Amino acid sequence: MRVSKIGEFGLIYRLAGLISKANRKTWQSSRQVIVGLGDDAAVWRPQNPYQIATVDSLVENIHFTLRTITWEELGWKSIAVNLSDIAAMGGTPRYALISIGLPENTEVENVEALYRGMIKIAGQHRVNIIGGDTVSSPFLFISVTVLGTASNAAGRVLTRSAANPGDRVAVTNSLGASAAGLQMLLHGLKFESKLADAIRKAHVTPTPRIKEGQTLVAKAVKCGIDISDGLVGDLTHICEMSKVGARLNVDAVPVSPAAKVCFPEKALELALTGGEDYELLFTAPTRVMPVVRKALACPVTVVGEITADHPGKVVLVDGAGKPYTMKKSGWDHFGQ
Amino acid sequence: MRVSKIGEFGLIYRLAGLISKANRKTWQSSRQVIVGLGDDAAVWRPQNPYQIATVDSLVENIHFTLRTITWEELGWKSIAVNLSDIAAMGGTPRYALISIGLPENTEVENVEALYRGMIKIAGQHRVNIIGGDTVSSPFLFISVTVLGTASNAAGRVLTRSAANPGDRVAVTNSLGASAAGLQMLLHGLKFESKLADAIRKAHVTPTPRIKEGQTLVAKAVKCGIDISDGLVGDLTHICEMSKVGARLNVDAVPVSPAAKVCFPEKALELALTGGEDYELLFTAPTRVMPVVRKALACPVTVVGEITADHPGKVVLVDGAGKPYTMKKSGWDHFGQ
Repeated sequence: MRVSKIGEFGLIYRLAGLISKANRKTWQSSRQVIVGLGDDAAVWRPQNPYQIATVDSLVENIHFTLRTITWEELGWKSIAVNLSDIAAMGGTPRYALISIGLPENTEVENVEALYRGMIKIAGQHRVNIIGGDTVSSPFLFISVTVLGTASNAAGRVLTRSAANPGDRVAVTNSLGASAAGLQMLLHGLKFESKLADAIRKAHVTPTPRIKEGQTLVAKAVKCGIDISDGLVGDLTHICEMSKVGARLNVDAVPVSPAAKVCFPEKALELALTGGEDYELLFTAPTRVMPVVRKALACPVTVVGEITADHPGKVVLVDGAGKPYTMKKSGWDHFGQ
Repeated sequence: MRVSKIGEFGLIYRLAGLISKANRKTWQSSRQVIVGLGDDAAVWRPQNPYQIATVDSLVENIHFTLRTITWEELGWKSIAVNLSDIAAMGGTPRYALISIGLPENTEVENVEALYRGMIKIAGQHRVNIIGGDTVSSPFLFISVTVLGTASNAAGRVLTRSAANPGDRVAVTNSLGASAAGLQMLLHGLKFESKLADAIRKAHVTPTPRIKEGQTLVAKAVKCGIDISDGLVGDLTHICEMSKVGARLNVDAVPVSPAAKVCFPEKALELALTGGEDYELLFTAPTRVMPVVRKALACPVTVVGEITADHPGKVVLVDGAGKPYTMKKSGWDHFGQ
């Protein structure tokens, strides 16, 4: 059945039903809601006084194509990329507002699958969906706002502007699997099923590193970002905002084992510039790194250092300290 | 110059410059910001513990056409419709997050004009723009999230679900001018210039009734909504959420004088179902109405009453109490 058949209010009614069932009353976020779905705006009373907000939009044929991602995965990803921004601040996600634009001939079942994916990941993080807007649109887009609170009482967060010369630069887990998955999907490449599954999942259902971000804040790390544009691009964002430079040792970069097997020639470039890994990239004084490594359950790899030289720029070197050149850096939505 | 020429980051840099100049440091909202534009997410510490959030998306050729609205007016309107949702809760708007999807060939000057319109109305309400997302898209869309706080310390707000049988139903100012403006613009109709200007402005740069909403809360009104779908449609929303019925006296509806002159035959229908007036519709016990009327600077007109009969339904009657029939009710984005 098409959405044009049941109309905007019919669709909202169905989606509100799905969401109401999913928002658990026992969550702290839910207990704080005063006015939820269905009014002009949502109202709640947060416990922690420090509020965090982020918004990200995904547009069909720009950020995704339904030829390579299911509706349910798309729902997951649209929430995940926002949760990742909260993780990049070391915060706790609490609420989501979902604005979607749908072509009239969209199948209601597909919209419901989209929301199932959203509800699944929201539930994992006890995120309460408190509002949104459902509109007709010539193309599919999803714009999600996630609201959260600082994870510590003093309101400390990770920012892009807190890197200092001498800091080590580190990343969580490994990089490149998401970009490898995208390459496979776009070019219809075939790999051994476990590998194919791993890189596909890395791309379509990324894991936001919420706990890791909170642990970084708890261990006094001050500077962090999530890797959405690519390691080099996101480290450049830190350099620009912190008015520092960075030296990145490409031989130290933890390249995803699956990406290495699938794209032996290209895996390093995918790890450096592919983006959408949603791992955390952070900087901290040398002495803090062992503390962080001990506190985090996931691998932490030091990949470089912050410099006072060449502010705003990332210099790539190999393990021997020699300059390393690569082709492209980061992801620009307007294709520059 | 096209946005594709300066790229995503070039555009964001320009827009961030415009916004930074516009966000005044003296505003309470600005003083509470800890991390503003340019990081993964925004962080702030609100004074009032009760938070309010709303999101609304405008899509080209669905909600507007650039043949009839300027970029600057579109910017104004995209913020205004969200401020109106905060007004409908009786809250105080504080922050905005702006997500826009832009075709690659969009002129940078037009995007800047869009932001000028946003900044103008945001400034009038001391709303600090703290974040957003700028993406490439095959069509222009604007998705705005506005965050606010309750306007009173106890967190009281206006909701759609607080109407009680016996309540009077009232509206602020007059209705139908916005829909009259839309008719004029879509059909290229000509009217005397002052009239044409009045109905055009009502449609393209509506005024959110922030102060009026706050006054309603202060005077103990509990039930309110803003008129975006149309008087009948929005009163139906109240009836559904409050599980009550309503009787609406169409002869009492304050029809916009300009709409009456321009569309003498059609003005009442425009006032009843045209929508996008962004006036406030509220219900309160009979004794509260004179108090509200005295406290509000704008006209307040009682147009009906809440009934225990026919829950979820609005019955239209004329001044003599006889049933009144009309053609369509409300605005459905999927065109049902």
